[in-house]
Amino acid sequence: MNYTLKQLSEIFNFKIIGDEEYTVDKVSSLENASEKSIVFLSDKKLLNMLDATKARTIITTKEYSESFKHNVIITENPYLLFVKISHLFNPNKKNEYYIDKSVVCTTKNLNKNLSISPNVVIGKNVLIGDDSFIGANCYIGDNVTIGENAYLHPNVSIYSNVVIGKNFIVHSGTVIGSDGFGYLNESQKWVKIPQIGSVQIGDDVEIGSNTSIDRGTLDNTFVGNGVKIDNQIQIAHNVHIGDNTAIAGCVGIAGSAKIGKNCTIGGGAGIQGHIKICDNVQITGMTKVSCNIDHAGTYSSGTPLMTNKQWLKSAARFKKLNELFVKNKK
Amino acid sequence: MNYTLKQLSEIFNFKIIGDEEYTVDKVSSLENASEKSIVFLSDKKLLNMLDATKARTIITTKEYSESFKHNVIITENPYLLFVKISHLFNPNKKNEYYIDKSVVCTTKNLNKNLSISPNVVIGKNVLIGDDSFIGANCYIGDNVTIGENAYLHPNVSIYSNVVIGKNFIVHSGTVIGSDGFGYLNESQKWVKIPQIGSVQIGDDVEIGSNTSIDRGTLDNTFVGNGVKIDNQIQIAHNVHIGDNTAIAGCVGIAGSAKIGKNCTIGGGAGIQGHIKICDNVQITGMTKVSCNIDHAGTYSSGTPLMTNKQWLKSAARFKKLNELFVKNKK
Amino acid sequence: MNYTLKQLSEIFNFKIIGDEEYTVDKVSSLENASEKSIVFLSDKKLLNMLDATKARTIITTKEYSESFKHNVIITENPYLLFVKISHLFNPNKKNEYYIDKSVVCTTKNLNKNLSISPNVVIGKNVLIGDDSFIGANCYIGDNVTIGENAYLHPNVSIYSNVVIGKNFIVHSGTVIGSDGFGYLNESQKWVKIPQIGSVQIGDDVEIGSNTSIDRGTLDNTFVGNGVKIDNQIQIAHNVHIGDNTAIAGCVGIAGSAKIGKNCTIGGGAGIQGHIKICDNVQITGMTKVSCNIDHAGTYSSGTPLMTNKQWLKSAARFKKLNELFVKNKK
Repeated sequence: MNYTLKQLSEIFNFKIIGDEEYTVDKVSSLENASEKSIVFLSDKKLLNMLDATKARTIITTKEYSESFKHNVIITENPYLLFVKISHLFNPNKKNEYYIDKSVVCTTKNLNKNLSISPNVVIGKNVLIGDDSFIGANCYIGDNVTIGENAYLHPNVSIYSNVVIGKNFIVHSGTVIGSDGFGYLNESQKWVKIPQIGSVQIGDDVEIGSNTSIDRGTLDNTFVGNGVKIDNQIQIAHNVHIGDNTAIAGCVGIAGSAKIGKNCTIGGGAGIQGHIKICDNVQITGMTKVSCNIDHAGTYSSGTPLMTNKQWLKSAARFKKLNELFVKNKK
Repeated sequence: MNYTLKQLSEIFNFKIIGDEEYTVDKVSSLENASEKSIVFLSDKKLLNMLDATKARTIITTKEYSESFKHNVIITENPYLLFVKISHLFNPNKKNEYYIDKSVVCTTKNLNKNLSISPNVVIGKNVLIGDDSFIGANCYIGDNVTIGENAYLHPNVSIYSNVVIGKNFIVHSGTVIGSDGFGYLNESQKWVKIPQIGSVQIGDDVEIGSNTSIDRGTLDNTFVGNGVKIDNQIQIAHNVHIGDNTAIAGCVGIAGSAKIGKNCTIGGGAGIQGHIKICDNVQITGMTKVSCNIDHAGTYSSGTPLMTNKQWLKSAARFKKLNELFVKNKK
Repeated sequence: MNYTLKQLSEIFNFKIIGDEEYTVDKVSSLENASEKSIVFLSDKKLLNMLDATKARTIITTKEYSESFKHNVIITENPYLLFVKISHLFNPNKKNEYYIDKSVVCTTKNLNKNLSISPNVVIGKNVLIGDDSFIGANCYIGDNVTIGENAYLHPNVSIYSNVVIGKNFIVHSGTVIGSDGFGYLNESQKWVKIPQIGSVQIGDDVEIGSNTSIDRGTLDNTFVGNGVKIDNQIQIAHNVHIGDNTAIAGCVGIAGSAKIGKNCTIGGGAGIQGHIKICDNVQITGMTKVSCNIDHAGTYSSGTPLMTNKQWLKSAARFKKLNELFVKNKK
């Protein structure tokens, strides 16, 4: 795929300092660029890499535009323009429509405008929207609905009755709709609580690899529009996640927690069950959220990194903290 | 499925205040009930929802029985009765017996009273008990034994020689019997320790989605009867989990740890290797268990949630905690 | 498989105290040995088990050699010798070469010296080295390269363009090459950043079950030679892991972190994005690494285990730590 800078400027509306007829064929990092790469720079610390890069075309801000002696594209948000050009060079593969002959599908009259890979198993009464791709070895249970333009990578499991909006992306190993962890204790034995709700997922959601989203106990677990969920995440039954919230890897969200819109949850954080978090909250990595959050802002817990030798002392003292406070009140 | 309240009372032995001939067809939450739903109430805080619910039949305690103007079922533990009725309305699907023609099975004379879904792969000398269901794309290795009435959801992997009791439930993406993480360091290189033990799992165990249980190094990793294990959990080689212990999502249990009976391990907790935890211990969420626990009770670690601004101050001070104590001893 | 002790000594070069013609047929733990087992002892605490073991052959150090009344093999590192003998008794199954008839493979002229299990799906232009085993239901995307002597357990997903060295082992449920978690926020909506790098993995790497390794944004995520990665681990885009580093279960490594050689990362630890960790660093379990580490050594964070009652007091005091320090400075 080749574009001249002029052609790109007609699509994305920017000005070029340099050779408008120069041809580029990909986006690259500064380190691994070739002559036909487009690169970007928005971080002062990387200025010292400009001499060494093989790229001849850079996207940057006005501030740094004179630091590069070849073609320069000036914009206020270089990374955003770079990303948009990257989408142009790296389109989602539009496969021709096909259903592999190894596919086992119990649904009659499945939509034909689909690409369904080998060994996929599809239950009864499934609806999948136009232009969707289903990767190898995926399982889609009875009565599942998936909107148009979905991309399921291989080895995804979607249980019965799950409902998913349009433009869905999900990576391998992810499970949607498994039973919530619900038991009652009767005479020292656990009685399973039937998990008869399902999972409802909005539009424009992406979910990473090896993540789990449990179905609700009675009603649905809910994931709003535009939510982004990383790898290795646990979303328990009855959880509610507001629109455009982003959740980084290894987060665990316990049952019935309700998270607002436009939140970001850092990697490895844990949200206790039945907690409510309001809109526009940031949780830093590995924080334990054990109480409601009613005000937008950034929240944390934990202790900082120390050498093990120093840490052992502070940790031992932590156990005596109350006594020290009591002593100091005297 | 329809039952009159009288029919239900004959099965579950309760008294009805209201219309014994009233027909119900499902269990529901208060919010999403319809006229033919059964709902339950045991939490005072939800009393204000009774006016709005469309349900006409409620299970509750004597204390709240006069708060609802329609049919009332009185019992000491409303949720437990509700769960039992939910099982009646939501039976495990008893599929007819079948082995899909795409199944690849090396075992001769496999039990016939089974439901085996498409693309399942089964090794040699496998024993699967009556009335078991094996979901699509599961893998069952050589010499595996699974008791009667098992339910394997799709995409489960069970390695060779694993032994599992009856009434087993396991959700998608879970792996049982993968090699433990065992290496010896010889001249800065890791030498793999062969993992030749297996995994032994008792009766009435349920395991969530995307969980890993490693096989033992020499002997077996052990999971007792009635144990309940949630999603995204790591159980390392040689771990021993006592009967009826329940382990919430994202817990990691390191090698050779021994956990007692009737324990509950909160989400995201970590149990260090070779630790012993006695019976009847509760570990709160995200706690690090770094020493033996010899007495029943509840245990914790970590720091509470704070605004990031406040937390940064406390965290910095934590590093100087020893100095403060030393100063205070003067 | 049977060996006399003399035969073993010719392979591994050790001296025997006892009957050189004694035949052994397996390695075992002290508890579950039989008469023909080889066991080992290097821990003083286990001396009291020697009377009860049924084994008649033990590997131990000179120090304990007189504590056992049957055959004794003396060596400086008993466990290492035991492991080497275990490899002899438990060789990797060398299956005959075969490609199951259910395999779907788009690559023309795939190497023939392979064992490929049922329902495997292989894309275009894939190269797999001699003597490799591909387990059931694995997916291998277009342009993947895997070195000789690989062992992929069932249900592994490898995305397109991933490059892997020789002697690779990977366990079930693991995903290599899924998209990194990269978005730009434009007017409160997340714009996906195309993840067009890949993953490069060195020789002699083992990866556990249900682990995720994301592809790089522009360049490759990198895993060095001899790296060992346990179960349930998240390795984000652009991460770099140096040779012979070992990473225990449930660790999360955020984007662009760079970890040195010969490090060990304890279970449940979290490494923040863009952090640099030098060679020969040990991180203890559940530690949060939130700043660069420039000196070899052991590092920790967190608080110690306490009864919940005591912990609640210390935790409450932690929030007031700054005030206490300020007061003490007066």
